[in-house]
Amino acid sequence: MEKKATWIWYPGDFEVWLGNRFNNRRTERGSMFPPFWKQDSHWPTVVFATTVQLEQAEDIRIFCEGQYNVAIDGSLKSMLNVPAGKHRLTVKVWNQATPPALFIDSPTIKTGEGWEVTFEDKIWIDENGVAHGSGIYVPVGHASERADGCAAATLRGVAHYGCAAATPGGIAHYTFDSPDTPPSKFRLPTKPLRPVCCDSFSTSSSLYDFGRETFGFLCIHGLRGEGLLRIYYGESREEALDHDHCETLDVCPVSRASCMVPGQPTLHGSKAFRYVSIEKEGTADFDDLTMLYEYAPFAPEKSGSFRCSDDELNRIWEVSAYTLDLTTREFFCDGIKRDRWVWSGDAIQSYLMNYYLRFDTECVKRTIRQLRGKDPVTTHVNTIMDYTFYWFISIWQYYEYTGDVAFLHEMFPKMKTLMDFVLSRLNNGLAEGKADDWIFVDWTDFPMHKRGTLCFEQLLLWKSFEAMLNITSTIYQHTDNAKEKELLNDCLNRYLLFSDRLPAKIRELFYDKKEGVFLHAIENEEGEDLSSGELNRQVTKFPNMFAILYNFATTEEALSILKNVLLNPDVPPITTPYMRFYELETLCKYGLQQQVLREMKSYWGGMLREGATSFWEKYNPEEKGTEHLAMYGRPYGKSLCHAWGASPLYIIGRYFLGVGPVKPGYEEYEVRPVLGGLEWMEGDVPTPFGKIHVKMDKKSVTVHSDGGQGKLIVGEKSIDIPANEKVTFYF
Amino acid sequence: MEKKATWIWYPGDFEVWLGNRFNNRRTERGSMFPPFWKQDSHWPTVVFATTVQLEQAEDIRIFCEGQYNVAIDGSLKSMLNVPAGKHRLTVKVWNQATPPALFIDSPTIKTGEGWEVTFEDKIWIDENGVAHGSGIYVPVGHASERADGCAAATLRGVAHYGCAAATPGGIAHYTFDSPDTPPSKFRLPTKPLRPVCCDSFSTSSSLYDFGRETFGFLCIHGLRGEGLLRIYYGESREEALDHDHCETLDVCPVSRASCMVPGQPTLHGSKAFRYVSIEKEGTADFDDLTMLYEYAPFAPEKSGSFRCSDDELNRIWEVSAYTLDLTTREFFCDGIKRDRWVWSGDAIQSYLMNYYLRFDTECVKRTIRQLRGKDPVTTHVNTIMDYTFYWFISIWQYYEYTGDVAFLHEMFPKMKTLMDFVLSRLNNGLAEGKADDWIFVDWTDFPMHKRGTLCFEQLLLWKSFEAMLNITSTIYQHTDNAKEKELLNDCLNRYLLFSDRLPAKIRELFYDKKEGVFLHAIENEEGEDLSSGELNRQVTKFPNMFAILYNFATTEEALSILKNVLLNPDVPPITTPYMRFYELETLCKYGLQQQVLREMKSYWGGMLREGATSFWEKYNPEEKGTEHLAMYGRPYGKSLCHAWGASPLYIIGRYFLGVGPVKPGYEEYEVRPVLGGLEWMEGDVPTPFGKIHVKMDKKSVTVHSDGGQGKLIVGEKSIDIPANEKVTFYF
Repeated sequence: MEKKATWIWYPGDFEVWLGNRFNNRRTERGSMFPPFWKQDSHWPTVVFATTVQLEQAEDIRIFCEGQYNVAIDGSLKSMLNVPAGKHRLTVKVWNQATPPALFIDSPTIKTGEGWEVTFEDKIWIDENGVAHGSGIYVPVGHASERADGCAAATLRGVAHYGCAAATPGGIAHYTFDSPDTPPSKFRLPTKPLRPVCCDSFSTSSSLYDFGRETFGFLCIHGLRGEGLLRIYYGESREEALDHDHCETLDVCPVSRASCMVPGQPTLHGSKAFRYVSIEKEGTADFDDLTMLYEYAPFAPEKSGSFRCSDDELNRIWEVSAYTLDLTTREFFCDGIKRDRWVWSGDAIQSYLMNYYLRFDTECVKRTIRQLRGKDPVTTHVNTIMDYTFYWFISIWQYYEYTGDVAFLHEMFPKMKTLMDFVLSRLNNGLAEGKADDWIFVDWTDFPMHKRGTLCFEQLLLWKSFEAMLNITSTIYQHTDNAKEKELLNDCLNRYLLFSDRLPAKIRELFYDKKEGVFLHAIENEEGEDLSSGELNRQVTKFPNMFAILYNFATTEEALSILKNVLLNPDVPPITTPYMRFYELETLCKYGLQQQVLREMKSYWGGMLREGATSFWEKYNPEEKGTEHLAMYGRPYGKSLCHAWGASPLYIIGRYFLGVGPVKPGYEEYEVRPVLGGLEWMEGDVPTPFGKIHVKMDKKSVTVHSDGGQGKLIVGEKSIDIPANEKVTFYF
Repeated sequence: MEKKATWIWYPGDFEVWLGNRFNNRRTERGSMFPPFWKQDSHWPTVVFATTVQLEQAEDIRIFCEGQYNVAIDGSLKSMLNVPAGKHRLTVKVWNQATPPALFIDSPTIKTGEGWEVTFEDKIWIDENGVAHGSGIYVPVGHASERADGCAAATLRGVAHYGCAAATPGGIAHYTFDSPDTPPSKFRLPTKPLRPVCCDSFSTSSSLYDFGRETFGFLCIHGLRGEGLLRIYYGESREEALDHDHCETLDVCPVSRASCMVPGQPTLHGSKAFRYVSIEKEGTADFDDLTMLYEYAPFAPEKSGSFRCSDDELNRIWEVSAYTLDLTTREFFCDGIKRDRWVWSGDAIQSYLMNYYLRFDTECVKRTIRQLRGKDPVTTHVNTIMDYTFYWFISIWQYYEYTGDVAFLHEMFPKMKTLMDFVLSRLNNGLAEGKADDWIFVDWTDFPMHKRGTLCFEQLLLWKSFEAMLNITSTIYQHTDNAKEKELLNDCLNRYLLFSDRLPAKIRELFYDKKEGVFLHAIENEEGEDLSSGELNRQVTKFPNMFAILYNFATTEEALSILKNVLLNPDVPPITTPYMRFYELETLCKYGLQQQVLREMKSYWGGMLREGATSFWEKYNPEEKGTEHLAMYGRPYGKSLCHAWGASPLYIIGRYFLGVGPVKPGYEEYEVRPVLGGLEWMEGDVPTPFGKIHVKMDKKSVTVHSDGGQGKLIVGEKSIDIPANEKVTFYF
């Protein structure tokens, strides 16, 4: 196959730059609202380099984002003809505003894999003008095809290449494979949608309903007159009509049209909404209102799917899929109305759901890179200690699902410096929240102490060490470089020093043998000895379920926890879908799918019965009416489309269809289907090699897979699943 | 005095951003030529904050470079009225392309001192929407008036405020004190100059001579026709006429005029030249050629001066002053034709000369900040190990001349991380060059080993420790913060651990007691034990003169070095003005001004006799004709206007006029005038409080000072110099 040229950049820099654009799009009642944590920048000057071996001289044409120079074998050239033979080609690019990026598509010389890049060439020149030295080169960053080949394929089918008119401000693309689609022009594709109905309250006031939660750019056609339009967005009808309290709004002066894309009916800023309330002031008027729905492209034929005998569960799966699609954007974000930020705790759940829906590995990698940003580390990921730990864990999980060793290689230096930061803040080997650290755990409806040394955080720390150790030894096995091996070995020994001691400490401090539960925290002062702090004996589900989930608890401990905590009605319930995710997974691990199905139907079904068209940030069945809309002390503070609300995607794919990798990238995998009370079910799980199809009723289960070495596990039976053969097992 | 509003930004970020623009202006025969080392970026999102106490409510108007939001006491505001009482005002700004910057000039609320800034507000929000936490705030960066009040004063007198037409692409300013002079528009002022003569070789070919070395933008008036102008620049006539080898050139298409500032006759790119050769192609023609001379503003009445009985020395001083003025730009750079980069080794000399010429403290601070860039440290300053050491030393020297404690506070965190980098690379406590480190020392005409462990580098390391220790204890004395004191104390102890052991090691390894000289190097392999390397017994002036200069050598050692090395004709001579600087200073420290005067007249006088109008990068009296122009294997590779060529400014001010600070900022100072063979001399030395005037002949010496507590030291006599009184001493 002919090699295809792609735009290249310094790895991670595209995400750092795009992440700033992305996170800074949040607004609160018209004010911009950037994140609270450090935002980084791309390297403004980099050197791209490759070694070419040409049979004949070749002219090259340079497409570049930034000012640049070109050198062949170290000599600057203005005529771009590369002579025959072996040559070192370097292009140095400076771009302060957007990441330096390069595209060359000549017969032999093409940018893409095989190119490397440095942010410091570290060349030095002796008395005779001879250059010595060289910087640290790493493989370039570029958009690759997704592990399932999905993005490129989809894009060509669905997305709007070159449709600048349809996509405000740019061209939608993922693959960066032509001179006129450089990284700085990256935009998601859009398609036009119409409202399903409109209520006019007066000549100047009307309410549009788009039928369900949606996201994109409002289009105001035939705008005319003098005055302004006041536009109030609502995820609920109540919000759109409550002009004093709705979370997002636009004030659009008609004559200046400063909020419109020049020459288009389209507003600059994207918003999340179902309802839009518009007030006209002065003689302002317009003919029609539509929107451009903005979305991350995917290939339906390569996606996960699910149908079963329970219509409510089918609807839960579909609304979950729509919720995840809406929150899958340039990055996986939390909620599309309010935060629109990339959060590590939310993202790790999106990744897992995504492995069972779209398998968009490029978006996973973009999000992981974006969350980490650049050195120096000055704060936890998103300022939240738990979120730093999830970040480590998510990389190992990504590897389990994709088998992508190159990404481990890419991220390792940044994992190492973040782990240095973690280690530098341990107190007696334990993770405690420093004054400026946010200790999140979960939003709870009951009081919960969050300072000092929490058992929950120690379990995440322990799992982070496990991820680091796994990744370090995986890279060790995949490198021949003796110096790198030495470094990796040093790291391994260092992390072992901490991780080895941790389990005993956790048990000693927090496990109450008599009660058979993990207790909540030591309330020590920052940096003080733990013995100075009181033991907080509160019992919550959080540390207890993670002890099971992360395989920390012994079987004996786990069974005790199940009984005394997870199935104990006296322990305060979890009220966010965020932690419901882990709670349900824990129950599934112990074969309690039947209970989980009941809980999904009650909890997610409950939201559906409240009229949800996407799943919420938080749901409390006790609340009534507009109480459901409030959060953070604001009447419409709650996000009604929140990624973590989509967890049934993962629970169903992983624990009902029962599909999961055993060796990285599904090289080996298992299928452990569980009906959990359903009459029948059928679905697809996407993998790097295609799909695994599972169909089950009470009599039989059938599996078909496009690749990999599978095992169908039913009870104590294990049946081999060869690639591309249908295997049926009858009970 | 009423407080004046100034633009504010994150400290150091203006310099980082401006430094990239500055360093990337280098071209080599038309190709851009950025530096070899890491270029950093400003923080793209920062929060500016201040606490205000208002007697009555006040409207504020925000001028901002970037998108922003405003909050009062943590609540976002769209109406900018600050109510009466005590309030926390924060402005969050995002700007990817240029540093986020803010200007508010309301009756009471004005940006400037008293504002602080962070790149991570680290706020976190609890269940009730209550915000907690806060990032690390530091005092904002802003252009202050120079220690001598010079820049602001000058600017108002001389510089071209608002003269956008005269200054290509922007407005010249230093003080950033109005809404329309934001940091991103910073440009040096310019003034028009005409060539002194023109040779026409044909209708299409001519050579312009501007009479002496100059710098700026060529202006081509009345450009017309079709075709192009080829413009070849030369610091020498030979270079401008050698179209195949001149270092800089412009190719200017007439019809597209892409190299011209729109609507102006002015070329985009500034160049250094005396001669300009122009070739017209096609029907291209023009009426007239002039230039805009670009310069750093200064106040002549507040500058240093020197006159004496020796006309050649007067001319040396004047050409030195012109050389330093030409190389004093946005930053102190090395040479204006070729590198145009900021180099730490060159800069530390410019700083010292500048303390005796313009006392431009803002340019010193800008340069120090620019050189350091941002964390993480991945390489030595300019990739050169010696240059890292000079960077540390230059900050202590800056403090000695200015007494500016605030700058020590500002730089300390970055000194600490750079010192961590240095310490992490020591081998057995000694500084050795790692594979990618440039070990510069000097350009020599004799072979000199530069790998392994050089005695020269250890002396610079030792002096760096001294600077770090001095600075750490100075800050310690100026802070009341117990936590900061504890950190500083830890640092002190850490540095002492290294520095205490160093002198004995240096002597043991390198000092030959029998010969009474410091030997050159241990030729060990990187990271190997020193005993594995052979002792290189070469004797050069470099380590020996620094042992004296940095007060490392005992009196006995110093006298032996003077005799056996510095005054020994068998030791190879130094051929760059760079190291001549230190050599002459060393001789002056031992009262050898008479010999130094002879050497200045021979060496710098030699360049004048060769026709120099500014001083060169290197001068070898043995060379003839165009040999003087060549360097780095290129016929015009040598810079004919190089900052380090201006060292007589420092030698004369410090060791002939004899003026220097004894306590930081000239709070106490000494005048030790030495005629050194002159009949008479007279001059001014600028200080933070004004000037110190010294006049001396063989009969008497008279001193007058605008401030400080001075001592006139003549032989063994010491006479007090009260401020504002003329003191005369008769021999």
